[in-house]
Amino acid sequence: MGMTRVAFQGVHGAYSELAARFLIDKGGKTAGGAHTIPCESFDEVFRSVERGSAQRGVIPIENSLAGSIHQNYDLLLKHGVHITGELHLRVEHVLMAGPGTSMKSLHTVRSHPQALAQCSRFFETHPGIRPEAFFDTAGAALSLRGAGTAGVGAIASAYAAELYGLTVLRRNLENEPHNFTRFLLIARSPWKLRGGTPTKCSIAFRPASNTPGILFRILGVFSLRDIDLLKIESRPDPASPFEYLFYLDLAGSPREPRVERALAHLQEVVTHYRLLGAYPMGSGRVYGAIKKRNFRSRRK
Amino acid sequence: MGMTRVAFQGVHGAYSELAARFLIDKGGKTAGGAHTIPCESFDEVFRSVERGSAQRGVIPIENSLAGSIHQNYDLLLKHGVHITGELHLRVEHVLMAGPGTSMKSLHTVRSHPQALAQCSRFFETHPGIRPEAFFDTAGAALSLRGAGTAGVGAIASAYAAELYGLTVLRRNLENEPHNFTRFLLIARSPWKLRGGTPTKCSIAFRPASNTPGILFRILGVFSLRDIDLLKIESRPDPASPFEYLFYLDLAGSPREPRVERALAHLQEVVTHYRLLGAYPMGSGRVYGAIKKRNFRSRRK
Repeated sequence: MGMTRVAFQGVHGAYSELAARFLIDKGGKTAGGAHTIPCESFDEVFRSVERGSAQRGVIPIENSLAGSIHQNYDLLLKHGVHITGELHLRVEHVLMAGPGTSMKSLHTVRSHPQALAQCSRFFETHPGIRPEAFFDTAGAALSLRGAGTAGVGAIASAYAAELYGLTVLRRNLENEPHNFTRFLLIARSPWKLRGGTPTKCSIAFRPASNTPGILFRILGVFSLRDIDLLKIESRPDPASPFEYLFYLDLAGSPREPRVERALAHLQEVVTHYRLLGAYPMGSGRVYGAIKKRNFRSRRK
Repeated sequence: MGMTRVAFQGVHGAYSELAARFLIDKGGKTAGGAHTIPCESFDEVFRSVERGSAQRGVIPIENSLAGSIHQNYDLLLKHGVHITGELHLRVEHVLMAGPGTSMKSLHTVRSHPQALAQCSRFFETHPGIRPEAFFDTAGAALSLRGAGTAGVGAIASAYAAELYGLTVLRRNLENEPHNFTRFLLIARSPWKLRGGTPTKCSIAFRPASNTPGILFRILGVFSLRDIDLLKIESRPDPASPFEYLFYLDLAGSPREPRVERALAHLQEVVTHYRLLGAYPMGSGRVYGAIKKRNFRSRRK
């Protein structure tokens, strides 16, 4: 019952690491749990999986406020890996500080500029507290363990607060509660398809021509077979400015004959087709559910 | 010949301000030029335009690496404004420092964490230089005008370097040259449609039902009339998790009968329809072209 080595971008306490723990140790079924490996860049996450130094990788692919992370779609197309799972994680920003720092004594709060912007209302109503830009949310939390941090707080996940032994001063600091990030689990081998599990497929392609109506013909491949589309997105191809790349998620498994036929039919009208992965449909999660199972004690 | 007051998010020297100058003063045709107004948030940009304290606003809507900025689509749907123009701006990161700081004496380089990450290869090949997180690229450039910045550089646009009188140490610091941001110009009144100008429309809607094939029926509205689609994107509706919002850009003007009929037909199969704007198709720009016209002398 070995642990699964999972690469993620960031430092311990990052939202990606939390997603990795949910994805690997889902429902307590995986006895070994996750041994999470911090990486400096997304590219390093992919390379770790490709060369086998990690068995899995976890990457954010889209956020409900900030959109699809094209950079990670590019890396999915570049590297020989497969999507084997997904998770929608509620991004809940928590205000934390070292023991002894109270709300009243706070004068500075550190976090990633995006997280600080997502909590702008807190700073408007607390003009005495200065926001300070930091590389990442978990790094800001980690920094509070150092000396000279009296009166300094951080905005990060409740998971980071717990990991670094910080006091939670306030939860749900974000302006906008509908803040979800979708994470993908990646591996060298495809997910072993099982009957009965609702499955989805993620594909990428470029239309074979640039004529009006080509997309209509492409979608006909699915609609004529009653296959439900879960996501569609066009994007100017970075390698070829006047061409478009499409990302498409559909409900179904490539083992179902109608999906198999649709994917074969699709390849008649597109170029650069790639099945990025077929994997169980994910669910939404918040941090509360993971805490009870005490991931912290599992860390080395 | 008054100047046009244009609101943008950020501080002077931001990529958004550069986009505003391109959009307002295009080709030198607008004699008055742009009087740019910095705003703390995107919401403030929209509010400034809505209440008339700015005649125009400029917002980023998508980036070739980071995807669509859903937050700004949400603000377009929330506020009573219209898209009246667009621009694709090449994001070219420049390394700059105050006079007297050379490449050799650099020990720290400040910028927004995303810009620092986009230039990670520079830091890998210069291990003696420490990246430092800052709120924004232009703010990092501005900070170099203060005291105690010997040996400190910033990564921002060449425009910011010029604006703040900094020395450009190296251009094109980014790992990935295909880094474009699409900016939208917004106003209280729609763009006055003129014959002969290639026009595009941006619309948003929610399908009237959630059945397989509904998207195929929706796209039929356009393909049966030979109308070319320039962008399509689905997104889980933040206000209603199991519904999808669609963004669609199409080639044509609502004054063309076939486009007018298609948009009327569309409203039979969708709900929450909104024409976000009809506006001239934009082109791509890089900073070099603007510099010659010496925007700096126009600033108050």
